[in-house]
Formats: sequence, C-alpha cells, structure tokens
Amino acid sequence: MISTITLKNKPSIIETATVAGPKEGESRLGKFVDKIYYDDTLGEKTYEKAECKMLSYAIGDVISKTKIKESEIGALVSGDLLNQIISSSFAARKFNAPYIGVYNACSTMAEAYAIGAILVDGGYTDNVIAATGSHFSTAERQYRYPLELGAIRPPQSQWTVTGAGAGMISSRRGNYPKITSVTFGKVIDFGVTDANNMGAAMAPAAADTIIRHFKESGKSPDYYDLVVTGDLGALGSRLVKKICFEKCVDIDRNHVDCGELIYNIDEEEFQGGSGAGCSAVVFNSYIYKKIIKKEINRVLFVATGALLSTLSTQQGESIPAIAHAVSIETEG
Amino acid sequence: MISTITLKNKPSIIETATVAGPKEGESRLGKFVDKIYYDDTLGEKTYEKAECKMLSYAIGDVISKTKIKESEIGALVSGDLLNQIISSSFAARKFNAPYIGVYNACSTMAEAYAIGAILVDGGYTDNVIAATGSHFSTAERQYRYPLELGAIRPPQSQWTVTGAGAGMISSRRGNYPKITSVTFGKVIDFGVTDANNMGAAMAPAAADTIIRHFKESGKSPDYYDLVVTGDLGALGSRLVKKICFEKCVDIDRNHVDCGELIYNIDEEEFQGGSGAGCSAVVFNSYIYKKIIKKEINRVLFVATGALLSTLSTQQGESIPAIAHAVSIETEG
Repeated sequence: MISTITLKNKPSIIETATVAGPKEGESRLGKFVDKIYYDDTLGEKTYEKAECKMLSYAIGDVISKTKIKESEIGALVSGDLLNQIISSSFAARKFNAPYIGVYNACSTMAEAYAIGAILVDGGYTDNVIAATGSHFSTAERQYRYPLELGAIRPPQSQWTVTGAGAGMISSRRGNYPKITSVTFGKVIDFGVTDANNMGAAMAPAAADTIIRHFKESGKSPDYYDLVVTGDLGALGSRLVKKICFEKCVDIDRNHVDCGELIYNIDEEEFQGGSGAGCSAVVFNSYIYKKIIKKEINRVLFVATGALLSTLSTQQGESIPAIAHAVSIETEG
Repeated sequence: MISTITLKNKPSIIETATVAGPKEGESRLGKFVDKIYYDDTLGEKTYEKAECKMLSYAIGDVISKTKIKESEIGALVSGDLLNQIISSSFAARKFNAPYIGVYNACSTMAEAYAIGAILVDGGYTDNVIAATGSHFSTAERQYRYPLELGAIRPPQSQWTVTGAGAGMISSRRGNYPKITSVTFGKVIDFGVTDANNMGAAMAPAAADTIIRHFKESGKSPDYYDLVVTGDLGALGSRLVKKICFEKCVDIDRNHVDCGELIYNIDEEEFQGGSGAGCSAVVFNSYIYKKIIKKEINRVLFVATGALLSTLSTQQGESIPAIAHAVSIETEG
C-alpha cells in the first residue's frame, strides 16, 4: 500500500509563530524568530512551567496573528518531550479548542502538521493548530543528568533547543504555502544504544521516510528546493545523505538539517540542535519565511524522533526512531 | 464551530483483540477477553517489557484475525501511559506499518479510534489499527510508589488495569459496527489536585464532551443504548451523571463506565479500574462483542484521561483532563 498521502485540497499554512530562548535568539537564525526571551525561565518558578509558557505563547500568537477565534479552531494538535506531554496538555488548558495530544519525540512537529493537514484536507474542520516545543533545561534534567551536576557532554551529543513553534493549517484559500502530501514514518531501529548519539539512531528512520516518499510519489529529490530534516545534527545529516545515496536517492545537493542550521558553530553543542523545539522553531521561522518570500517554493519537511525513554535505556533497549514527512509547496 | 465530526463513509471496526492480566482475567469480564496471562510478567524481565508485549500481542492478534497484511495497514495509531509512550513505540517497531504516536492518558483508546476513523473515512488509507494498554505494576511505580513499598491506597483511588486492546478500522463494507461520528475533547480543569482521585478530575471533562456531542449532533441520550465512559470509576461515574443531569442531559439510564464494569467488587481496588488499558480491554472485548451480537446497536464511547504527570503534581499543578467521544453504530 502506498503510504504517501496526497492531499487533494492542499490545506494552507496561513501563519506561524515562534518563541525561543537566549542561546537560540543570539544564534544565526535568531532574527527570524518572533519572540526571544533572554531569561530562559520566562519569569516562571520552574523550567517546566517556562517550557509550557513558551508553547502557550506560540499557540496564542498564531491565533492572534490569524485573527481566527478560538471557537473556530477545530483542533490543537500538540505534543512535547516532557513525561506525559504536560507542556502541551497544560498549554491546551488555556485555549477553548479540541485537543489532540500526540507524541513522536522530536518528529512531533511534522506529525502534528500531518494530522492537522488531513483534518483540514478532508473537510473535517477549517482550522487546526500544529504546535510543539522543548527546553534545554527540562530535557537535560529529565533525560540525562541534574543540571547542577555539570556533566560533561560527549562529542556526538546535541543541544536541546529552548523554543516553541506553532502553525495554523487552514482551508482558507489564497497565496499561502500549501501542504500537498504527507508520508507517515515507520519505526526503524538499527540497534544504536548510545543515548548521546541521536543523529545515528534517527538517520536510518529519516532515510526510510525520504526514500519511501520519493519512491511512492514518483518525484525526484530535485523536485524540492530543500529537503529539511528535523534534528539529525551534523553527524546524522552525513549519515542520512549517505544512506539515501546508497539507495539511489541523492539528496546531497538540497538537504539541510534544522539541528545543523540553528546554532552558531561552537564546541558546546557539538553536533548542533535537537529537541522537538528544534524543527518547530527552524521550520516555522526561517524556512516558513523563506517560502513566504518565494526564495524557495517546494520543501520536504522531515522531522525526526528518537523514541526512547530513560527507562528503556536503563533496561538495555536500543533506540527506535521515526521520521514523518510533510511537503509544503507554494506557487513560484 | 461544530466540533462533532460526522463521518460520511462510516468506517467499520472489523475486528478487535484484547489481552489481559490475572486479576482482569478472573474478574467478571474476563470471559470476553481473548488472551489472559496469569503471569503478569508474560515471561519478561521487567513489567515495562511485559506491558509492551501485551500491546504487541493485541496488535498482532487483530492483524492475524483480519488476515490483513502489515503492508496493507496505513497506520498504527497508539499511545500508552509510560513515559515517552515506549510500550507503543517499541511495539510499533515490530510491525511494518506507519506509526502515529498519540497521548491523551486514559482517553487514548478513543483518541486513537477517532484519528483512525478520520484517516479511513477520508479515503487516506483503507486500514488503521487503534491500540493502547496499561499495566498495574508499571503505572504504580511510575506514577505513585515503588511496588516494594506496599503503600496504602486511599478509598477514592482506582486500580490500573493490566491489559491491552486493539481494533482494526477499515473501509471494508459489510455488517460490521461502524464509527459514525467523533467528538474531540477539550482540556477541562476543575482544580482537583488529588492525584488519587482521578474520577473527580476527569468527570467534568467527560461531561463537557458528552454534552457537546448531544448539543451538536442534535441527538438525545436515548439515541444510544449505552454511553460508555472510560475509567471514571464509581465516584467519577456518579459525578458525570450529576453534571450532565444539571445541564439537562440525562444519561442516568444508559451510562456505564469501563472502570466500574471491569472488576469484581472488592475493597482492594476501591472505585474500580483505570488506566489506558481499562477502556481498551472493556470496549474491545465486552462492549464490542455485545455490538456484534446485536445485543446493543448504538454506543457512545467516551474514554477519559487525566493529563497530569508526577512532576506536574510535585510542582503544585491541578489535574487537567480530557475525554474524546466516538459513536459506534450497527444496523439493528
């Protein structure tokens, strides 16, 4: 069965909103982000509450930018990295809209866009918000070590992005970027067990979805101006290009990775950015604005997720991964 | 905007599969469950691996019962209560099908059915599996106390069901139960802070969805043979009926709750069953079989979820809750 879903009505992404922390704000893509907070607590008592606040702001901002009433929103599709996706659920509490909680780790941005696009494409509702985010300090202390420990980071590691992004998918017509197809990912596990090497764990899943997308859609990589992966980082990006190349799908020329793009290059974050907020911020700011300005017209957005937990790692499991792809196109 | 989605093509639930643990097997609904394991480790080294195995069995069984090839499955929509929904993601690793990870706590069964129904109804794919599960010992040690502690349970508490359930939603026509509409829930928080009193936290969310469903669909509660809530338990069931009654929606006569139904009445589990596996097992065994036998023809299935985490409770937050409704009908 063909798993790439072509959307006949091509729902529009009529607006996006992004929020980011200090490190992201000062980095090379900071100027594309709507709101930057130089205090990464956002005035909250805990980092978890700060993460939720960022996500709430992104959702609230996309609503106010579009002037769509909360009662006109058919669904808020959101998830995040915290246990029981509390950032999303607590953010959803603030909005009078149906809520669909989703989780596919750092691929959640593409997953949410994919589900939202189907809801709008099928005529089930007119407006859906897709949103996610992450926070360095919540992810670090939930997945790795207490912040106070100052654990040394290995060179294959990435830096969780403090940021959130939201997009409004709508049946509204006009000169907006359109979601034209969706390829849901399969869970792929190549047996990587190093929880500090997410790029290696996720690259095979990204390659699987990318290859499947091209095989099923009949398109070639050249069709797209950009093939944007989520947060593979520098090493993972090299791996995904290598795997695709070996399978005769050459994305070398037009591949970029949100994790590679987001930060200035310094040694602290090694392979680049990661976290659900990574692709959420980069796609909904930099990439979306490039599409709006017609600098690029066709993008395959492939957010990637590592489906582990601290407990699965403790129990000796390897790291399953997934990648969902969404194609976004605009008339040139 | 009307948030109750009417499904024009009325996708079929062509088959279900259920797996349960010893306590559930010995209880009043045990005879309706397909597979009962009297060793709640299922031969695995950890309870978490056992939970994943149960879920894998439910998914595998519904595939083999329907004789649909894995390659013909458009999506596996699944989630669970473990951090980062590892039971679902690790189960999905075993199947060659696209995976959509979802999480709305114990309302996940209805959420998965709702998303799956839309995917099939819209013609995006022909077959979708909706699945979830839970395990007493994993939930207890993740959300509450170490099992070895033998903590005393308060009288308003419920007992997490050890079990899993899966259903195959299909475009196949025939004399199958059909999903006719979907009402996605909103996040409702009445300020309940007692993490042992899930029934009270979830009842307002269930009432909101039920009332919205009837208001928007123009149906009266008498339309349904049963209004089945997920896992409100005895106290929560009384509350949801009271709230609905006050809003002039009288479900007293045809309301049942999976948490109230599943166990024999004894003091140990107080208010009844809970957990994502509760509605998964009860709906996909007892309720589904009642529909198949035409003992009942119209069911509004309203699974309920408490969207807390241990951390949100530790940080002094109240408990937001949600309920998604799916109507299942068969020709009488």
